[in-house]
Amino acid sequence: MRGDGDETRVGALSEAHVLRRILDRLAPSTAPVGPGDDAAVLAVPGGRVVATVDTLVHGPDFRLAWSSGYDLGWKAAAVNLADIAAMGARPTALLVALAMPDDTRIDFVEALADGLRAACDALAPGCAVEGGDLTVSDTLTIAVTALGVLDGDPVRRDGARPGDVVALAGDAGVAARGLAVLFDRFRDAAGVPMCLEPTALAQLAPAEARGVDAQLRPRPPIALGTAAAAAGATAMMDVSDGLVLDASRLSEASDVTVDLDPAVLGDDPVVYSGGEDHALLATFPAAAGVPAGFRVIGSVRAAGADRVLVGGRRFDGRGGWDPYRDWDAATG
Amino acid sequence: MRGDGDETRVGALSEAHVLRRILDRLAPSTAPVGPGDDAAVLAVPGGRVVATVDTLVHGPDFRLAWSSGYDLGWKAAAVNLADIAAMGARPTALLVALAMPDDTRIDFVEALADGLRAACDALAPGCAVEGGDLTVSDTLTIAVTALGVLDGDPVRRDGARPGDVVALAGDAGVAARGLAVLFDRFRDAAGVPMCLEPTALAQLAPAEARGVDAQLRPRPPIALGTAAAAAGATAMMDVSDGLVLDASRLSEASDVTVDLDPAVLGDDPVVYSGGEDHALLATFPAAAGVPAGFRVIGSVRAAGADRVLVGGRRFDGRGGWDPYRDWDAATG
Repeated sequence: MRGDGDETRVGALSEAHVLRRILDRLAPSTAPVGPGDDAAVLAVPGGRVVATVDTLVHGPDFRLAWSSGYDLGWKAAAVNLADIAAMGARPTALLVALAMPDDTRIDFVEALADGLRAACDALAPGCAVEGGDLTVSDTLTIAVTALGVLDGDPVRRDGARPGDVVALAGDAGVAARGLAVLFDRFRDAAGVPMCLEPTALAQLAPAEARGVDAQLRPRPPIALGTAAAAAGATAMMDVSDGLVLDASRLSEASDVTVDLDPAVLGDDPVVYSGGEDHALLATFPAAAGVPAGFRVIGSVRAAGADRVLVGGRRFDGRGGWDPYRDWDAATG
Repeated sequence: MRGDGDETRVGALSEAHVLRRILDRLAPSTAPVGPGDDAAVLAVPGGRVVATVDTLVHGPDFRLAWSSGYDLGWKAAAVNLADIAAMGARPTALLVALAMPDDTRIDFVEALADGLRAACDALAPGCAVEGGDLTVSDTLTIAVTALGVLDGDPVRRDGARPGDVVALAGDAGVAARGLAVLFDRFRDAAGVPMCLEPTALAQLAPAEARGVDAQLRPRPPIALGTAAAAAGATAMMDVSDGLVLDASRLSEASDVTVDLDPAVLGDDPVVYSGGEDHALLATFPAAAGVPAGFRVIGSVRAAGADRVLVGGRRFDGRGGWDPYRDWDAATG
């Protein structure tokens, strides 16, 4: 699963050879036109396609000491699948633009392809890589486009109405706890990330290990996106930057206020501010109930002075992650 | 068109602010769901979507001394539109993943958005940016996904048959001549790219200036993609890496040999090896004639020992560009 140990650098291989090595690891195409032509052609029953792109960049988004090629492929797929699910859609295809340094090992690239395939197979069966692009870059960069199809209308983030319940499927704060473990335990005295030695990983408490897993290989509840749409979700989005920050985006778009329930969510600040779990945050008419896999975490109120409340009161912690505000290449 | 002179660095702005500044420059969305939600929702009449991704990376793909933000936006759009056109499809939407250093000026980003819009308006009216992603990176990287729709069947690269004519719409070698001008005239003694001062540009011969324009702001004949499909093209692809190299890919996929006609193409090697013009290379049944905008440049033969011939003889020059073989960051 993690490459066959071929340490050859991609710079010593032709583009066609690197491409072949990747394609050999991917699921066979089921599209009318799959990889190998100028563009893929994908069936889109219903006449609408859902499309999103998200990029993982070495430095701000991952560290190679912490993430294997497999982990990166998995995560690049998972975060994009979550954006498709958050529209109430079913993911059907990925396009992968991979820009990498010449000294990248081919077995790293193969492991990345394995991770892409494994995430699709586990989280969105039937979805496969149907196209992509290879480029040389000084900075390892993985831009994934995900495409999906809809059974009914898309679930936007602007449809929440006062009286709706707020529900969450998936984790809140778990991936952020994992990132904290990586920063605290897997950097040397100078702050440089250190590899995740199995013996060190084995010493983590179960909750810490679960956090690291969630940070490196998130498992958003992709199938619950279409379930939410079928159950009549009025609004939905994926929680990528933190529950309060993303809830404020939903309430801003819907011109409402979201009141989160601390009796359900607890009082750990990371639950409210931690990003990267890619849980599905949705609102449903109160009478409808929420589908299995979602838990009610609050309610929608008429718009007030604050977009998000916690237990009816202003939330005064950090709401979440803004890459332009929070990332500093010098201090990491 | 080239930014309003705001030198603020994106690292000093929030992601939401940078996004707003970009969206203000783009054409209004006509999609069912445009920018601002987890994913875009696009209408796809006919139930099939054509999708491709291509990435421009600082260093191998462009130099900031030579390309303005506007140029980069234009080129990133144009090269992807060409891939959609090469399937016989009409481009309808772009998704733009922009990864850039914190010290990137906001007016550079605005100019890039202007270039994306201008290329769509000029080359593929009705196509617009409908989604994207912003990330911090040490290496300026622009990954564009283009989506399109089909009236009939897609034109693949594997349908050429012996007896077909080979036709080209667009330039061959012009962009490569422009790159040579940039390398020859706009680098200092140490080989470092120098800015394109208007006085220096004004001293170029017309053919040189045209080459530079084609290199920085290519104008592939996007509308001729659907015209070729309607005229019965049996195979088509865009010429991104050089006429002989890309023709060999088409003939390999089709299991034929392509014989290019030097009486039409001339004997300048750059015509055969120069990439980045993004012309459309297509084959048509001989009896059908070729649509306006295409010129016949050769014929399809039964598969022989060579995939590409020039005037019936083996081509012994360099066929084109392979980024893994040809790019060297040290000598660039």
